[in-house]
Amino acid sequence: MMLSQSERIAALRSEMVKVGVDGYLIPRGDEYLGEYVPPCNERLEWVTGFTGSNGVALLVATKGVVVTDARYGIQVRAQVDRKFFETTDQFNDGLVKFIQKYKIQNVTIGFDPAVHGIAAIRNLRAQLDPFGIVLKPIDGNLVDLIWHDRPGAPHTGVEAFLETYAGLSASDKRTIIAEKLKDMGVAAAFLADPTDIAWLLNVRARDLAMVPVALSRAVIYADGTVEWVIDPLRVPLEVKRNLGNAVSITPPESFPETIMRLKSRALRDPVLVDERMTSYAIAQMMEDRNIILKLGTSPVVIPRACKTSAEQQSIRDAHRRDAVALIRFLSWFEGEVGRGQLDELAVADKILWFRKQDPAFRGPSFETIAGYGSNGAIVHYRADENTSRKIMGNGLLLLDSGGQYVGGTTDITRVLAVGDPTDEMRVHYTTVLKSHIAVARAVFPRGTSGAFLDALSRAPLWVGGIDYGHRLGHGVGCFLSVHEPSVDLSAKGRDEIFLGMLISNEPGYYREGEYGIRLENLVLVVPADMVGPEYRTLDTVSLVPFDPALTKLSMLSAEEKEWLSAYHTRILDEIGPMLPQADRMWAEMTCRYFMG
Amino acid sequence: MMLSQSERIAALRSEMVKVGVDGYLIPRGDEYLGEYVPPCNERLEWVTGFTGSNGVALLVATKGVVVTDARYGIQVRAQVDRKFFETTDQFNDGLVKFIQKYKIQNVTIGFDPAVHGIAAIRNLRAQLDPFGIVLKPIDGNLVDLIWHDRPGAPHTGVEAFLETYAGLSASDKRTIIAEKLKDMGVAAAFLADPTDIAWLLNVRARDLAMVPVALSRAVIYADGTVEWVIDPLRVPLEVKRNLGNAVSITPPESFPETIMRLKSRALRDPVLVDERMTSYAIAQMMEDRNIILKLGTSPVVIPRACKTSAEQQSIRDAHRRDAVALIRFLSWFEGEVGRGQLDELAVADKILWFRKQDPAFRGPSFETIAGYGSNGAIVHYRADENTSRKIMGNGLLLLDSGGQYVGGTTDITRVLAVGDPTDEMRVHYTTVLKSHIAVARAVFPRGTSGAFLDALSRAPLWVGGIDYGHRLGHGVGCFLSVHEPSVDLSAKGRDEIFLGMLISNEPGYYREGEYGIRLENLVLVVPADMVGPEYRTLDTVSLVPFDPALTKLSMLSAEEKEWLSAYHTRILDEIGPMLPQADRMWAEMTCRYFMG
Repeated sequence: MMLSQSERIAALRSEMVKVGVDGYLIPRGDEYLGEYVPPCNERLEWVTGFTGSNGVALLVATKGVVVTDARYGIQVRAQVDRKFFETTDQFNDGLVKFIQKYKIQNVTIGFDPAVHGIAAIRNLRAQLDPFGIVLKPIDGNLVDLIWHDRPGAPHTGVEAFLETYAGLSASDKRTIIAEKLKDMGVAAAFLADPTDIAWLLNVRARDLAMVPVALSRAVIYADGTVEWVIDPLRVPLEVKRNLGNAVSITPPESFPETIMRLKSRALRDPVLVDERMTSYAIAQMMEDRNIILKLGTSPVVIPRACKTSAEQQSIRDAHRRDAVALIRFLSWFEGEVGRGQLDELAVADKILWFRKQDPAFRGPSFETIAGYGSNGAIVHYRADENTSRKIMGNGLLLLDSGGQYVGGTTDITRVLAVGDPTDEMRVHYTTVLKSHIAVARAVFPRGTSGAFLDALSRAPLWVGGIDYGHRLGHGVGCFLSVHEPSVDLSAKGRDEIFLGMLISNEPGYYREGEYGIRLENLVLVVPADMVGPEYRTLDTVSLVPFDPALTKLSMLSAEEKEWLSAYHTRILDEIGPMLPQADRMWAEMTCRYFMG
Repeated sequence: MMLSQSERIAALRSEMVKVGVDGYLIPRGDEYLGEYVPPCNERLEWVTGFTGSNGVALLVATKGVVVTDARYGIQVRAQVDRKFFETTDQFNDGLVKFIQKYKIQNVTIGFDPAVHGIAAIRNLRAQLDPFGIVLKPIDGNLVDLIWHDRPGAPHTGVEAFLETYAGLSASDKRTIIAEKLKDMGVAAAFLADPTDIAWLLNVRARDLAMVPVALSRAVIYADGTVEWVIDPLRVPLEVKRNLGNAVSITPPESFPETIMRLKSRALRDPVLVDERMTSYAIAQMMEDRNIILKLGTSPVVIPRACKTSAEQQSIRDAHRRDAVALIRFLSWFEGEVGRGQLDELAVADKILWFRKQDPAFRGPSFETIAGYGSNGAIVHYRADENTSRKIMGNGLLLLDSGGQYVGGTTDITRVLAVGDPTDEMRVHYTTVLKSHIAVARAVFPRGTSGAFLDALSRAPLWVGGIDYGHRLGHGVGCFLSVHEPSVDLSAKGRDEIFLGMLISNEPGYYREGEYGIRLENLVLVVPADMVGPEYRTLDTVSLVPFDPALTKLSMLSAEEKEWLSAYHTRILDEIGPMLPQADRMWAEMTCRYFMG
């Protein structure tokens, strides 16, 4: 029976009364606390209508609020009915402001401990304590009780991620992680992030549309053994055999026994737990058994971030395939746009269609951003049937898309001229291009942190009086997450940039109400042998031309032109031979503009 | 009676026995914990022979060690007789290694609490505790007891620093600092740094050869009143009158009463104390009276760092005067060097001579660094009679010098070609010049921190596979310290760069055993109106040409050549008219090389 929104909210309030709480939290996150959730866990959307990737709703007796961050300000106002929920994009203090506004004090607010992280609850308690508000864990999610037509949980089959692509066997990976655990003096690490497990065990699945993993959990011990908590029926015999005896499989319903075993093996030695990815419920289960928790980053993050040679090769291959799709799309677009029949959704669909032509394509790595005109200035804009704008007249179309391929994950952003771009658009596009090139050409010694690359990207923009309000980029997985924890590429970034990291180089400029520009390629951190033994540089793996109509050659220095020439020569050399004739001719014409 | 070094050490050991300690610390610092000490406080030199600006000696019954930092590795080995003291330039753990080596355990080491800072003693205790070593304060310095021909303490007359130069009256400055104290919730701040007092009260003196201040102390209260601890005979009636009733003067011998008054006025409110600049003894006096200490940076640092318009004008004027001296020197050097009669000391003397020709010159701001050939690669090299190298053959001469002028402090570094420089020297000089220009041209928005400028300086060097191992630069005072706390210009620098800051831009490259290159100008942080209201840029105030013989124009981009052209045009316009005819002709010939 499909409930209307007001019925859903009334039912939820009714459950709140039954368990004796004055309010209830509905976060965007699910049990796995990741960026994406499967349809069965889209509880926040089901209750409030909001689909952004970060947010939490608070429902009280007669009011409610949806709190998100600045990326989704416009979206949350568009999607949430003010009759039921107020909205705010001030993530840091939005909840407190709501509580202050309505003088919500000395009450009890319930939460499902399985869907909030340890750190999140700690921060919430710190915010709400001063108001005499008690945050009370309620086992079992109240939304699930009333969501009668809730979709089933995903349980796609697990497949092996071949060592040909991974470059390291699962057994070697377990040894590497076990050594780290010994160095850290911990008995084991609880792996709450399904992408950690996928990397460690060299397995993939399809539980999430954009991330090829099985939603599962695991424990890795300092002796290298692993207990993997997943429905055994999902793991083919062959995969189980390859994993060997060191990896045991436990059904999810036996998870309490996993915790018991963890206690009996760890004893008084600490267990490493990531406080952002591990749920309050699981931490509570561990503490109930007197397991000593050591809060820290998963031991998988850095080893995974440093891609092996085999991974780097398959990443390059995935990017060549992706380049074919993108170049065919750009060629098609140039011929098609003049007819005035396109809109943002059609463009996003067409990019997907071109990617689908490749048999190695496994689906998008994230929802395509196609923003024409002022929509391009909304950094996290996603077109839908209501908002999809027609692409006509004069303006800029910003296109950010990516794919999952059998051996790699892609993410690329280009800006396309529609009609006659103004000189100002060209000046700004070229300035952002200069920023992109400054990063692409960077050389730096071992030990350098992300702040150096961020500074290089800002210098040409600031000289032009423009700037962008997001990070320079992010880590990317190898047929895993398109947003993979790796190195902090921001002005405050202190993490070291390591050899083998795959990161995005995506500066931009967003002119509110007019247009957005972002120029993104993925780059691998490689040795800069010609410079010296301790030096590194960035090797660009995305091989798609920039837009001649938007690039003012007169604004470029000799070194910038040199870089562009070499880059576009590579495109013709590596991708040219794989393109259909007409598209190859288009590529040659386009690239020659940059080849001086 | 002049004691030999072995007699000095024996006498010191004898005093150690008398007070019952097994060891004694002799730091470089004096009661004022500054970078420079007056001759009467050069205790470390008197005991060990070492003259570097940072170090501490430990003397025990039969051994001793002098610990300094990496800047002075060569110097400490040259100056200290190994018969009496071992040496190390590993400042962080040098003392601990010495203690481990000789198994010095469970002993008492004495120290004079008046000449060590709070933080320094805390760090020492942390290092020495594990060895069962007790650090015991001994009032009265043991070196003073045996240094019978010790020079007298300086007591030069105080003079006013005119408001014409300062731009703010002492009264207004007291109001500004008092507001900060109120915001911080402290009753008062103890000003341990004599340069803080000089800025606050708009006074100068000559107690230190290189820093025009009176060695004194003060307390400023949250109501803006100040108690200045200085011999009243040093303060002329006129200066006292201008300071007014809000500033009271207390003789140093009555300092204990200053502390009593501090307690009676502060009561239970905290007093702000800088833990690096305030001695252990003074902190102890405060704690004995139950004054609550709040450890933090002096409230003067940031206001002083942001120069007023008047200060900026007088800084520019001081730099024009300095440029005249430098350009005359360079012109003289070019004609003289070929005779092969010069050595490093003669060159340092000649620069000083040229500066002295200006009536506004008040002495050097630091000891000149004149390093020829491989001496230039020793970053803190100072020539003396033993080491002064003859300047002949082919090579590079690095010259870092500066002056105190009535309205400003200068600091500038140039590299001069001697004979025929190799192509490699020219490539490296030009690369460092590119690094310097990248910083000089920088544009950045409000809120940017020092790490951004450091990154800009590294990028061109790293592309060329070279680097420098010091910070990009430092803050500079206005007729005060040449090294003034201001903004951290290093890769980790998180302090904000504020309008009005005067900082040095001094990247370099040091090729051990061959040559050193450093190209330094001082720059003011000014609004970049042409770019936008929130943007800043750097205005170079040092106006001295670079070396045509060392600059490869073919390595420079169009923007770099443009910057050099505009810079050298300014030199001719602003300094040209002030030069004697021959030197003016030399300047024109030299500058034209850069003016395309």
